[in-house]
Amino acid sequence: MGVTLRLYDYTASANCYKVRLLLAQLGLAYERVPLDIFDADTLTPEFELINPARSTPVLEVVPIGYLIESNAILAYLADGSELFPPDPFQRAQVLRWLLFEQADVMPMMGGLRFRLLTGRLQPGDPEVARRMGGAADALRVLEAHLADRDFLVADRYTIADIALYGYTHVAHEATIDTQSYAAVEAWLRRVAAQPGHMNDLRPYPPNASLQVGRSIYG
Amino acid sequence: MGVTLRLYDYTASANCYKVRLLLAQLGLAYERVPLDIFDADTLTPEFELINPARSTPVLEVVPIGYLIESNAILAYLADGSELFPPDPFQRAQVLRWLLFEQADVMPMMGGLRFRLLTGRLQPGDPEVARRMGGAADALRVLEAHLADRDFLVADRYTIADIALYGYTHVAHEATIDTQSYAAVEAWLRRVAAQPGHMNDLRPYPPNASLQVGRSIYG
Repeated sequence: MGVTLRLYDYTASANCYKVRLLLAQLGLAYERVPLDIFDADTLTPEFELINPARSTPVLEVVPIGYLIESNAILAYLADGSELFPPDPFQRAQVLRWLLFEQADVMPMMGGLRFRLLTGRLQPGDPEVARRMGGAADALRVLEAHLADRDFLVADRYTIADIALYGYTHVAHEATIDTQSYAAVEAWLRRVAAQPGHMNDLRPYPPNASLQVGRSIYG
Repeated sequence: MGVTLRLYDYTASANCYKVRLLLAQLGLAYERVPLDIFDADTLTPEFELINPARSTPVLEVVPIGYLIESNAILAYLADGSELFPPDPFQRAQVLRWLLFEQADVMPMMGGLRFRLLTGRLQPGDPEVARRMGGAADALRVLEAHLADRDFLVADRYTIADIALYGYTHVAHEATIDTQSYAAVEAWLRRVAAQPGHMNDLRPYPPNASLQVGRSIYG
C-alpha cells in the first residue's frame, strides 16, 4: 500500500482481534503497539492526540494519519482485496453488515461479555437480561440470513464475516448459548476454517476486573 | 445508475430522512413507498420478504435487490459523487463516522426522541438519563472534532455530514440542549445551507404514541 501500518490495540478486545485477523489473512506487515487499557495506556495525553475518543483499535497509516472504528479499519485494509468485493451493490451489503455489527451485535454480545467477565455485571441484573435479549435478536437475524448461505455476502468470505465473527464466536463467554442457532454454528466453523485463520484473542487479564475491595457495593 | 430506485420509508424517521435528503441533493429520481410503521405496514408477510428485520428505510435497486441500513444506503447512492470522496483514506474516515452515528448517536439521540415524543419514556426515568448521557458523550466527540473543521471529513460536505445531521438536528426534540456545543451548532447551520438542502422530516403522528388507555400502567 506504500505506507507503514501501526496498530494500537488491546489483546482481549474482539474489535481489535478482528483487525489482527484481517491483517494476518491479507499477509500485511504491521507494527503492533499493545496497550493495557486498564493500566491507563489510553488515558495518557499522548494517546489523546492519537484518538480523542480513547478507544481501541487505532490504525496509524504512516504518513497519512490515524483511523478509528474497527470496521472502518477493516474496510480500509481490505479495499482492493478479495475480502471486500468490487461490485458496488455487494460492497453496500458488506457495509450493511458492518453497521449491524457495531450497532446491534457489539453492544450486546461484546458489552455483555466484558461486563460479566470483569465483574461489572452479575447474572440476574436487569441489564444482563436486556443485553441477552438484544443478543438473541441479533442471532435470529444471522440465523435467518445464513439458513441458505455459506457466508454473509456474495457467497464468499468477506470482511463482513470477519466483523461478525469477532464477538459471535465468543458469545458463550457472555453466557449466550448459540447451540440452537445451527446455521450460525456452521458458519462459525466455516469462518474458522478459512486459509490463514488465526485466533489470538486473549481472556481479560486480572487487572480488567472490578476489584471488590474497592467498592462498598461489592 | 442504470437501475430504478424505490425507497420504502417512514416520514418521521431521521434514518429515512437522511436517505431522502441525499437523493434530493444527488438529483436522483426514485419511487417513494411511504409506510405507516404503526399501522402494521412493516409487519405484513410481503414486507418480511423485502426486509426480514422489518426496519426502515429499505432501498430497492431494481432489478438487483434490496438494501437496508440507512448509512449503507447513503454510501451506495453517493458512490462516485462528490459526496463520497474517492481517496481511500478519506472514504475510510467517512465510514468511521457512519459507524459512529449508528452505534453511538442514533440509539441515544434517536432512540430518546422516539420514546419521549411517543410516550414510551417519561422525563425522570433512569433510561432517559442513560440516553442523555450517551448523547452528551456523542456531542462532545462532535464538538471536539468540529472545533477546527467546517465538515467532518476532507474539509467538505459528505455523506458523513448527512448521516450525523439526521438525528443531531432534532436533538432538542429529545430534550437534549445543543446550544452549549458552539461548533456543532455552527456545523448544523452549514449543513442546512448546502445547495439542494431540504427537510421533510415530520413529527410522529398520533398513532405512534402509546395510548394510555390501553395500558394499565399508564
